[in-house]
This record gives sequence, C-alpha cells and structure tokens, in this order.
Amino acid sequence: MNAVPLIVAKRDGRALAPADVRALVDAYTAGDVPDYQMAAFLMAAFLRGMTDAEAAALTDAMLHSGTVLDLSDLPGRKVDKHSTGGVGDKVSLLLAPLVAACGVPVPMISGRGLGHTGGTLDKLEAIPGFDVGLSIERYREVLADVGTVMIGQTAEIAPADRQLYALRDVTGTVESIPLIAASILSKKLAEGIDALVLDVKSGRGAFMKDEADARRLAETLVRVARERGTPTVALLTAMDAPLGRAIGNGPETAEAISLLRGETPAGGPADDVVEVTLALAAEMLVLGDAAPDTAAGLRLARAALADGWAYGILRELVEAQGGDVSVLDEPARLMGEPVATVAAPASGVVTAIDALALGHAAVALGAGRAKKEDAVDPRAGFVLHRVVGESVRAGEALATIYASDASRADPEAVLAAFTLGAEAPPARPLLLDRFDGAGWTGAPPVRADDASEGPANAAPEGRAGAT
Amino acid sequence: MNAVPLIVAKRDGRALAPADVRALVDAYTAGDVPDYQMAAFLMAAFLRGMTDAEAAALTDAMLHSGTVLDLSDLPGRKVDKHSTGGVGDKVSLLLAPLVAACGVPVPMISGRGLGHTGGTLDKLEAIPGFDVGLSIERYREVLADVGTVMIGQTAEIAPADRQLYALRDVTGTVESIPLIAASILSKKLAEGIDALVLDVKSGRGAFMKDEADARRLAETLVRVARERGTPTVALLTAMDAPLGRAIGNGPETAEAISLLRGETPAGGPADDVVEVTLALAAEMLVLGDAAPDTAAGLRLARAALADGWAYGILRELVEAQGGDVSVLDEPARLMGEPVATVAAPASGVVTAIDALALGHAAVALGAGRAKKEDAVDPRAGFVLHRVVGESVRAGEALATIYASDASRADPEAVLAAFTLGAEAPPARPLLLDRFDGAGWTGAPPVRADDASEGPANAAPEGRAGAT
Repeated sequence: MNAVPLIVAKRDGRALAPADVRALVDAYTAGDVPDYQMAAFLMAAFLRGMTDAEAAALTDAMLHSGTVLDLSDLPGRKVDKHSTGGVGDKVSLLLAPLVAACGVPVPMISGRGLGHTGGTLDKLEAIPGFDVGLSIERYREVLADVGTVMIGQTAEIAPADRQLYALRDVTGTVESIPLIAASILSKKLAEGIDALVLDVKSGRGAFMKDEADARRLAETLVRVARERGTPTVALLTAMDAPLGRAIGNGPETAEAISLLRGETPAGGPADDVVEVTLALAAEMLVLGDAAPDTAAGLRLARAALADGWAYGILRELVEAQGGDVSVLDEPARLMGEPVATVAAPASGVVTAIDALALGHAAVALGAGRAKKEDAVDPRAGFVLHRVVGESVRAGEALATIYASDASRADPEAVLAAFTLGAEAPPARPLLLDRFDGAGWTGAPPVRADDASEGPANAAPEGRAGAT
Repeated sequence: MNAVPLIVAKRDGRALAPADVRALVDAYTAGDVPDYQMAAFLMAAFLRGMTDAEAAALTDAMLHSGTVLDLSDLPGRKVDKHSTGGVGDKVSLLLAPLVAACGVPVPMISGRGLGHTGGTLDKLEAIPGFDVGLSIERYREVLADVGTVMIGQTAEIAPADRQLYALRDVTGTVESIPLIAASILSKKLAEGIDALVLDVKSGRGAFMKDEADARRLAETLVRVARERGTPTVALLTAMDAPLGRAIGNGPETAEAISLLRGETPAGGPADDVVEVTLALAAEMLVLGDAAPDTAAGLRLARAALADGWAYGILRELVEAQGGDVSVLDEPARLMGEPVATVAAPASGVVTAIDALALGHAAVALGAGRAKKEDAVDPRAGFVLHRVVGESVRAGEALATIYASDASRADPEAVLAAFTLGAEAPPARPLLLDRFDGAGWTGAPPVRADDASEGPANAAPEGRAGAT
C-alpha cells in the first residue's frame, strides 16, 4: 500500500473514496503504513476536513479493527447514550437504569475520566466491588437479566481507535470534528446497539467550548451514525456550570443514587441532572420503540423515576456486577471526609460557576486524572451548596471539599470558580437544541414549568420487557 | 522538548518564534522528536505556510546541522548559482567557468538528477575521470587555483536537510514553497558563499509548473537568503521547451563544451542556453563586485565567452578534478551511438516541444533516474535538430536518439513531444522577470537584438584575480 497519494489527495482538499480510507486504516493497523505517514494524513484531515462519507468509512474501519458485538439474539432494540463529557456529569448512572426500567435494553461501554472531565467507569468504581471489567459472556448475561450493563472498553473493541487516538494525542490532531466523531462512533457502534442518543455539550466546561463547534460535532456524529445505519439523535446541552451539585467520583455517584431514590442529595436538589436525564431518556425510549414520541417517552421516564423502578434496576445492576449494594442505602459512604468548607466572602447571588476551573481543581484534589496513568481518589470531590441563581450570605458555605488526603484541598481555587453578583442572572436554558439528522428541531420541553405532557402517572409499560 | 505546542501553533496558523523552529529541528536531528511529530508539523507548515522569518530559522537550523564551509581566507567574493531544475539545463557547466574567468570565484556544490530533471553532477561525470567527490581540502585548493570547483553534496553538508527531505518525500509534503526554499538555501549557504543567484524556472518542464508559484518561490528564496545576510537575486526563466538542443548527460556536456569553444554543437546553435548563461553571469559579476551593474557584467561575460577565457577555465577545471581533458577537443565522444532518428511526419513549423515529456523519455532511455538508486547511462540522450519556431519538411529529422542500449529508445515518445503547426508561434521570452528582494524589476536585455550594451570587446578585467 502506498499511502502518499492518499495523503496528497487529503492535503489538496479532495475527498477520498471510502474504500481508500478503509484501506489506509487497515494498513496502518497492520503496521504497513508507518506512524509518520498516518500523522501527516491526520494533520491534513484536521486542516482540510473530511466528508461524512469519509468519516463513516473511518468509523467503519476502526469499528471493524476489533470485535463487533452482536446482541441481536437478545430481545428489544438496544439503545445507548454517549456524552462528550463535562464536569459533574453523572447522567449515565441515572439514565441507563431509567431507560432499562422502561423496557429498552441499554448496553453501555464507557470510558475513564481524563483532564477536567469525569468518566462513568470511575464513578461506578467508587461503589466498592463494582466490576467494570466483565467478560463479554457476562456482559450479555447482565444485559439480558437486568436490562442494562455498564463496562469499560476492552482491548478487543476498536483497537485501531486506540492506536489512532494515541497518535493524535502526540501530533496535535485531537480536536478535529470528523476524527472525534469517528473515534466516538467506532467504540459505540461496536457495542451491538440499534440506536444511539448523544449528549453533545457546549460551554466552558465542555470539550467543545464553542457552540458552533458543538453543533458541527453533533451534526457530524448524527449524520455519520445514520450513514452507517444506526438511528441517532443528538441533544445539545449547556456545560458552563457543573451539572448538579457533586463533582468527583464518589460524590457524583452518591448524588445519582440519591436522585434515583427520590431523596435530596448532599448540597440540595439537582434539577438540572434530572432535566438532562429525562430529556435523553425520552429520546432513547422513542428510538427503542418504547414510546411513540418524546412527550410519551418523557411521561414514561418521569414515572419510572418517580416510582422507584429506575432505582430498582440500579440495585440489580450493582448486585449483578459485584458491587456492595449496601452503599445504595447510605450513599454518603461514597464520599471522603469533609476536609474544608468554602465560605462566601460576601453576600450576593451566584451568577456563574466555572465548570472548567472546578474540573481542574478536582484533578488537583486527586478526584481526576492529569495523565491516563494517574490513580484517582474515589472519595474526593466537591459538593456545591449554592448553584447558579441561588443567594448566599457572607460566611455561608458555598461548597464543601471531600478527600482522602486533606493536604490536596485548595479552597481558594474552588472559591475562585464562583462569581457572586447583586442580582440573579437571567435564566439560561440547559437543553439548547436537538438534531435528528434532518435538522435542528429545538430542545424538547422537560422542566415541569414548561412541560405540557400532563401528570406523570402512566405506568411504565415497558418494564416487563426489561426483566 | 515537547513538540506538541509547536505543532498546534503551526496547525492553527500562528508563526513560531525563530528560536522555536531551531529547537524543533535540532531536537528532530538529535532524535528527541520522532518522525511522526515532525511529519505532522511538516503537513501543518505545508498547509498553513511559514513566514520568511520561520523559513530563515529553518534554513539556519538545517545549515548548522552540519559543516558550514568558511572560504573567507580565499580572496574575492564567492558567488554561486542555483537552478530549480529543468530539462536540458546545462547552464552550470558554462556559467561557473565563465564567471570564474571574469574574476569571481564560484564554489559550486550540486546535486544529481531525479525524475524528469537532470543534475549537474551527472553531466560532469559524463567526462571520464571527472571526480565530483573531492575532499574539502582539495575543494578549497581547486577553487583557489582554478577559480571554480564543482562537487557533490557531502554527508557533512546540512544532514538535517537530507533527513527532512526523506521524510517529506514519504509524507506528501515536498511541494511547499518555504520548505523548498529552506532546503535549497541550507545547502547553498553551507558552501561558504558571499552571494547567490537563482534561476527559478517556470513551465511544463519545471518543478514549478505555475508561474505564480515560481514567483512565490523566487521571492521566498531571495527574502530568506537576504534575511540571513546573503545578497541574492533571482531570475525567473521559462522552462516549457527544453533548454538548448541536447538532453541527457553526455549530450548536454558536449553541447556546453561546444558552446564554450565557440563552435556550433550537434543539432545546431543553442542561443537560449547562452542567453540564460549570460543573464545569470551578469548578476553574479555584480554580486561578486566584478561589475558595477548588470549591463557592464553582461559585456564582461560576453567577452569572456567570445574570447575563449571561459573555455580555458573549464579545461583547467576538468584537469584539476581528474577528468580526461582530451574529450574537450572532441565533445562528440561524450555521446553514445545514434540509435534512432525521429523524422517529421509532415512539413510545418515546430510550435512547441514538451520538456516534461522529453524529460520522462530521457528517464525511460536510461539518461535519467526514476529512483535515487538508479544508475544512469552517461552517453544516452537526445539531440534536437529542430527547436520551437524552426521549420521542418516531412521526413527530415526532428531529433536523434543516442544510447548505449538501443532497445530502450522510444522514437514515438520523442515524436509525441513535438507539436507541428502551419505558422511559427509568437516569440516567447525566455527571461521572464527578475527579483532582487525589493521587487520585480523586469528581465535584463541579453539577446543581441534587444541589447544596448554595445560591442562585446572589453577585456575581461577580472581574469587576473581568478587564476
């Protein structure tokens, strides 16, 4: 294989034939195309872009570089969610049990946290004994028995993506929308899913700081996934302030458990977490054929949450994956010692909380990773007592810092993430928009005050199918 | 050294600090930056461009990766010429002796031919015994004794350029104007020269097919060389048809010798070769302080050519570098057997000769190299009996093919390079323009019919200084 003509074509802005993209990736994975040629190709692709057909071919090649799970023998349409990552984003822990509770199987393969964003695997592992390294056989069993399963990416899933990502990481070619899209989709589509919902985050604490970039990423992801035959919908959600009140693995898992139990978590209610969870659940229920439209999906999800069905699935999941079920009754056990309190220096209203700054502070505290090899302190993190729009009086607690190692706490860094003002800022929407492949359709109404779907008292019909 | 921030800066279109460019190249040469990072950087530089200051820093780093000759103890300002290469371009063989004959030392380090363009080293080696691999000591001696010396690039000259060129060759990053400029200049400036004249060719048989590209290359070369403190002038010359009547190493050397001897070479006169040679010589004589302006330089060069001084220097050069001087008296000995004649299929006027097609035909004949490792047949080539604007009758010879191996001759390919028409095409200038750093000043008048410099009878004053 001579890679030079393909590099030159991409360099000159020409679209490659899908077969050529696949041949290039296959040759790279086989060691027939060296790193330096792939690095030149990646930089050309970064600067010249890739068509959806090229990104789909790249996805395909990476997907087929390893095991592609086949779950077609299990009943129901399997639907998963992917989030581009944020600070305080514990949505998967609520969403997978919730959607499964409504009868749609959710096979979820997640990643670890890196940099300022957290990862679902680390949050799950905050539960003592929870095993994210199940065999494929056990993965299928848990999915069939519980309706959902949550594991980490195995070496067999899309090895070409790992190889390419490692190269992108050291060649300045990470932040390319088609390359990001292919990387995400190659892993997700290897799970054996029938449909996918994406939570594409935009804002200071997101991977995509710029909303236009986030929209382009959402469009590319949806179009490429659909080009590959997987119905996919993306929600565009805000990630300027952290999601919810807990940041850090144990604290976030505790918050998610409390919300599923219908209790008020440490710090106070986390309506934004519920809002995003319900919006994503509604989409997944429609794609999973459990609801005719998102309004119906929303009613179903709301009921499954309110009635404790979702919590029941989480309990089954933790048990099935070897976790200590007793912590579900006392989620506070997942948090470290409170080692410092961050007090408001003056009275006022919280007008902003810098998610990026808190994400970095969490890494410094040991709750996250600066490098892939770093270990995390599962009990470290922050609980916010005030979120954007809430008032505080001088001296009252804005946040509490939890950690196993008190010396790593930096209250000043946490305080610096808060902006206090005299007046509450105008309310900003959390659900910004929705892309379904045909176009941007506007975000669905989820909050009680803007919902028109009536009382959430419908029985979750799909439940039977999930157990 | 962490290369990623530099790759990212270039990727995003920012100019790097010269010190950062140098540090990157130094680290690459030292093996501290791997090929894949340099490949990503090169592609980013290819697509985003480099400022003159960046190209100068790159030149500097490559130049100082090896030996930089110091000829300052030899008298006179040393001036060299570089051509971007063409088909039939034997100008160096005339120019170096001619300029040296006028008292300006010409230390010349040349390359070999590759692809459709020839190389001076191969032409010199067509002379039996001619040694292009002199030691640096012997190089200095010959320059001091003869006034010029012509050798090949040694391993000590700009090794980083060789390493980078090899990487560019396999990563689709060759045709970048700042990278080309830095590559050319790093080698030329390592020769220990005080000034440089460039022959930047444009047209079908040139490396730069597009005149706008050729102009940009000329501008970059001149500005970067000047930024490094080396006065430099570029002539933009046409390379659509071959230069002169001979193509191939032995035939071209024979043509050059005949022209220096004042004889009509095989095929007929080669006024275009003389025109380019005189124009370049005039520039070199000005830069070498042997003439106050190009008109005076032109008079001087014309005299040195007409009076045989230049031929005398060539003779001394061949002798000093171990060549068989007797071939100078019988240049036809440098050509192989005439193995085929290409006859005109119809009567008409030659309206075009495709230099690129003849260059490729020369490679197929064994006169050039498809790959660096290929051997060349020094006696193979073509002699054109008709050039653009000349009439031919059906059945008359357009060209003769010379070769050691008759089976490699392809008369049809040679014929296909000729276009015959009913009328002579409008005369096209050979010297297109001139760039001196401040701007494009127009090509100097060189042809007898547009010259106003008077009869060429001035004694070549500089001669004494060269011997």
